[in-house]
Amino acid sequence: MKVFSVVGYTKSGKTTTIESIIRELKKRRYSVGTVKDIHYEQFEMDTEGSNTHRHKQAGAELITARGFHETDILFQERLGIHRIASFYDVDYLILEGVSDSIVPKIVTADKVSDIEEKWDDTTFLISGKIADVMDDYKGYEAISAIKNVSRLVDIIEEKTFELLPDYDEACCNACGYSCRELCKRILKGQKKRQDCVIGQGHITLKINGQVITMVPFVQKILKNAILGVVGELEGYTSNGTITIDMQNDKYD
Amino acid sequence: MKVFSVVGYTKSGKTTTIESIIRELKKRRYSVGTVKDIHYEQFEMDTEGSNTHRHKQAGAELITARGFHETDILFQERLGIHRIASFYDVDYLILEGVSDSIVPKIVTADKVSDIEEKWDDTTFLISGKIADVMDDYKGYEAISAIKNVSRLVDIIEEKTFELLPDYDEACCNACGYSCRELCKRILKGQKKRQDCVIGQGHITLKINGQVITMVPFVQKILKNAILGVVGELEGYTSNGTITIDMQNDKYD
Repeated sequence: MKVFSVVGYTKSGKTTTIESIIRELKKRRYSVGTVKDIHYEQFEMDTEGSNTHRHKQAGAELITARGFHETDILFQERLGIHRIASFYDVDYLILEGVSDSIVPKIVTADKVSDIEEKWDDTTFLISGKIADVMDDYKGYEAISAIKNVSRLVDIIEEKTFELLPDYDEACCNACGYSCRELCKRILKGQKKRQDCVIGQGHITLKINGQVITMVPFVQKILKNAILGVVGELEGYTSNGTITIDMQNDKYD
Repeated sequence: MKVFSVVGYTKSGKTTTIESIIRELKKRRYSVGTVKDIHYEQFEMDTEGSNTHRHKQAGAELITARGFHETDILFQERLGIHRIASFYDVDYLILEGVSDSIVPKIVTADKVSDIEEKWDDTTFLISGKIADVMDDYKGYEAISAIKNVSRLVDIIEEKTFELLPDYDEACCNACGYSCRELCKRILKGQKKRQDCVIGQGHITLKINGQVITMVPFVQKILKNAILGVVGELEGYTSNGTITIDMQNDKYD
């Protein structure tokens, strides 16, 4: 699942750019999901007086509204992008307005000073209103999603990649870089996504079907914990695959 | 995680009953989640014109709206109760208006004929408006959530249990009953939730694709060894499935 973010001030053409990208990706037969970051304090999707809102007021911690054609799961907290991404199983996940995540970014703007403010070293493209009047900014292409979505999505296909783990450098650094530095280098073509060693190791863990990432150190602990038990059993061989499925249950 | 449903016609006191139950459960220090089944065709939580609604119109298959204090994950399909439950990690999950799931049910009503219509063999209690004027219906207690929520929640604590797998009888029948029949018998005190052999304590181990049998004692050791590590990771939930695949290699 490739992930990227579109960032820019209000009225810079952010949502319009995303709509065009979604339509073009769908035309290319990809599945697409989105995450919208909402930057006003009072945001509540549910409306006062609805039954689900009453559940919330009464103290429910997680609320789901299930209709005939949709199921809305309302977490009463701000979840991290990795946790959110774990619910998705699509080809492209587009983040709108998410600027604090280490993913390739498109900046939308309607004037040059706004590019400057939104720009960071994970930006790979300029779009939005300003792309109607300029083609390039400091060597990066500026492409309008209205006029040339095909070229825009070509670059997205080429540049974007799977979410990096976003570990603190002090905890990992297994590839030799911080995640941000690796992201930057991948975008420049100096490194590949595969240079990140997390998740490609020898052990994968899923909880309710969702992959849980582990730093190499934790992978090793889990592996040793399992081998400590399994290694004593009849039928154990010291090489090959080990698969474990378990049902976890509090009231066990 | 114990699960039950509150069913009844509109204006029977369903949401009011649930609000009281939530408050009482919270008072008893339990964590609570809810699922509301919405029975009108046009239900859409998101409003026309919002950015996330525009993502949906453009073709996004799964959309998240993330604010400062909540994260709303909008699946564009009706999910099953087991799938929904897998997102929850609470002590009590209350379903509102979900009648097609094999869980203990409270029927709310404001007249006897409505009880008759909503009643099925998984019902264990009557509540709602009618509980103001009667105490019992065919041997089942009728308890008002307004007047006597303490007694109501005592019975919920006693009677409800974790979600049964809801397998087709043709596929399982391992306990000797269908899931519905087992549910009914648990509510009558003739059987226990633990009589369902699926789930609880269930762990399978394969080495190179071959199932390694383990006595319950060893199963428990392996399970605890895994939980000891996995339980500390972000993304862990205390119920649901855990799957581990590992490549074992002497020269690792």
